[in-house]
Amino acid sequence: MTLANRLLSLLKLGVMLSLLGVTAAAQAADPLPSWNDGKTKQSIISFVDKTTREGSPEFVPSEQRIATFDNDGTLWAEQPIYFQLLYAIDKVKEMAPQHPEWKQKEPFASIIRGDTKKALEGGKPALMQLLAATHTGMTGEEFQQSVKKWLAKARHPETNKSYTEMVYQPMLELLSYLRANGFKTFIVSGGGIDFLRAFAGKTYGIPPEQVVGSSLKAKYEMRDGKPVIVKLPEVNLIDDKAGKPVGIYQHIGRRPIFAAGNSDGDFEMLQWTTAGDGPRFGLLVHHTDGNREWAYDHPSHVGQLDKALKTAPKEGWTVVDMKNDWKVIFPWGNRQGASGR
Amino acid sequence: MTLANRLLSLLKLGVMLSLLGVTAAAQAADPLPSWNDGKTKQSIISFVDKTTREGSPEFVPSEQRIATFDNDGTLWAEQPIYFQLLYAIDKVKEMAPQHPEWKQKEPFASIIRGDTKKALEGGKPALMQLLAATHTGMTGEEFQQSVKKWLAKARHPETNKSYTEMVYQPMLELLSYLRANGFKTFIVSGGGIDFLRAFAGKTYGIPPEQVVGSSLKAKYEMRDGKPVIVKLPEVNLIDDKAGKPVGIYQHIGRRPIFAAGNSDGDFEMLQWTTAGDGPRFGLLVHHTDGNREWAYDHPSHVGQLDKALKTAPKEGWTVVDMKNDWKVIFPWGNRQGASGR
Repeated sequence: MTLANRLLSLLKLGVMLSLLGVTAAAQAADPLPSWNDGKTKQSIISFVDKTTREGSPEFVPSEQRIATFDNDGTLWAEQPIYFQLLYAIDKVKEMAPQHPEWKQKEPFASIIRGDTKKALEGGKPALMQLLAATHTGMTGEEFQQSVKKWLAKARHPETNKSYTEMVYQPMLELLSYLRANGFKTFIVSGGGIDFLRAFAGKTYGIPPEQVVGSSLKAKYEMRDGKPVIVKLPEVNLIDDKAGKPVGIYQHIGRRPIFAAGNSDGDFEMLQWTTAGDGPRFGLLVHHTDGNREWAYDHPSHVGQLDKALKTAPKEGWTVVDMKNDWKVIFPWGNRQGASGR
Repeated sequence: MTLANRLLSLLKLGVMLSLLGVTAAAQAADPLPSWNDGKTKQSIISFVDKTTREGSPEFVPSEQRIATFDNDGTLWAEQPIYFQLLYAIDKVKEMAPQHPEWKQKEPFASIIRGDTKKALEGGKPALMQLLAATHTGMTGEEFQQSVKKWLAKARHPETNKSYTEMVYQPMLELLSYLRANGFKTFIVSGGGIDFLRAFAGKTYGIPPEQVVGSSLKAKYEMRDGKPVIVKLPEVNLIDDKAGKPVGIYQHIGRRPIFAAGNSDGDFEMLQWTTAGDGPRFGLLVHHTDGNREWAYDHPSHVGQLDKALKTAPKEGWTVVDMKNDWKVIFPWGNRQGASGR
């Protein structure tokens, strides 16, 4: 190799490296790398830009940048059934030896026999009995420990991943992107507030005080000489549908400017959020990918998305088409690549 | 002046300036300038130091540094009577022309005649009627506007200051000091959550989502084609006594490590807070200064401090003796120096 050639090679290498550098920088600058380029991603980025850029006519002061997210079907999966219900079912099985009377009593008898479908045929009363048995009577701290223990061991029946791995990578990026731009992110879920608080910090970077959910009443009492909070079998708030704006009002005390959901249970949250003055953003995660995730929301027994989907164009809500808008679904890949049980 | 003298003078000036500089720096370094030096101030500073200094055996991670403050009698005054009650009374007078029936109906009739004492003789039922008439039926946003408007105009009957000026300067410093050290500060008050949220941001630097208080139920509905939250005449939570730990649990989702109050209504909040593992701090503001503020809390019809005061030594709670621990009471001075009406 002559000196000239050698120099030429070095020059080529330099050009290549600088090209690589540019690419890396462009990727680093992409705040939503798991989102395909297109209208959906662009609408999110322009909303964040116009509400946070100093001098923008639609600038929103940082303290008003409240963003609320539904959980089931929006931040993590909800198939084959709400994960919190799977917790209650596992808990009944674990508690069964201490409750011989359950062998004669529905919905417990069916669950113990492994027939979840039959157990749930009892509808709302059966569900309330399940909740009362597995979510009340203990202290708040005991309940949190029990949920954490379960989450550490339990595996999703199809993907064999832990439930806290069943989160949507593009939504994790969205949460980080909003926070990096001065938004305060909240969960506003129909799920139980104490259940959510057991993992929202580690999984989503959302502290307990920024979790709103359905709740039971609680009381303060002394147990073994120590003051504790005890969970009571009485509903405090059903944080679903019209209960979501109420939950937001009670907990957060102001109207969000950004709300994300995936079902008709989120309709009122998006409606209230986007009816406010100034720039507003409503986002619906539409479950359209039957291979990489599940295509189920229209119609569906969980996470039905109908009224909200029809309303979206009129209200200017952004609909995320999971199949076309997301490069990847879960942090570890997609459903069809999972190991299975 | 010889050159030598001149140099000597300059040197002296330099020494003086540097002394002044040292003094200024020492003052700037005092995070609680309105607190007299002594045991009380020192106990606060050592708690903050040991929980926040890296490498300290009692270090507490920032996200667990939750500090809760009562409001009436802890952050602002509560004499001659809770300010929120004065709002309700003024509001009844303002609304009276639209309610001719009130002239025949207690507690309204007495209020309209200017006899507040008689109106309040009706006890809790009278109070609930007052609250229902002045705190419900409107939207949350309308209520906030009404409170803000009132706060901008109303004046304290004795000091002639606005109510948001009736705050304790040493406590404002304490809030700032804790926040500067990574604590998240919350209000946990028996007062109404919506009332508090109307001024807590500007007055204390505490955003609506960090305010816990007594609350009414609310519902979501359409008014004039717009979705709103309407305040209902039904109690949701009485955030006082054993209701305070419950309110903290529901809203914040974890036990504070620091709690400040001033009355037996704060007993359970301090008890629950300081019963937790690791370093804990309980603080009681004791109203001992009849000249600069009011000496009233033992015994008293508002803000009674008895059980908590007796328990303080055993539990290691710090009692603030307002007369001896505080250099100044209000940001503008002290009660005896106020202009009066």
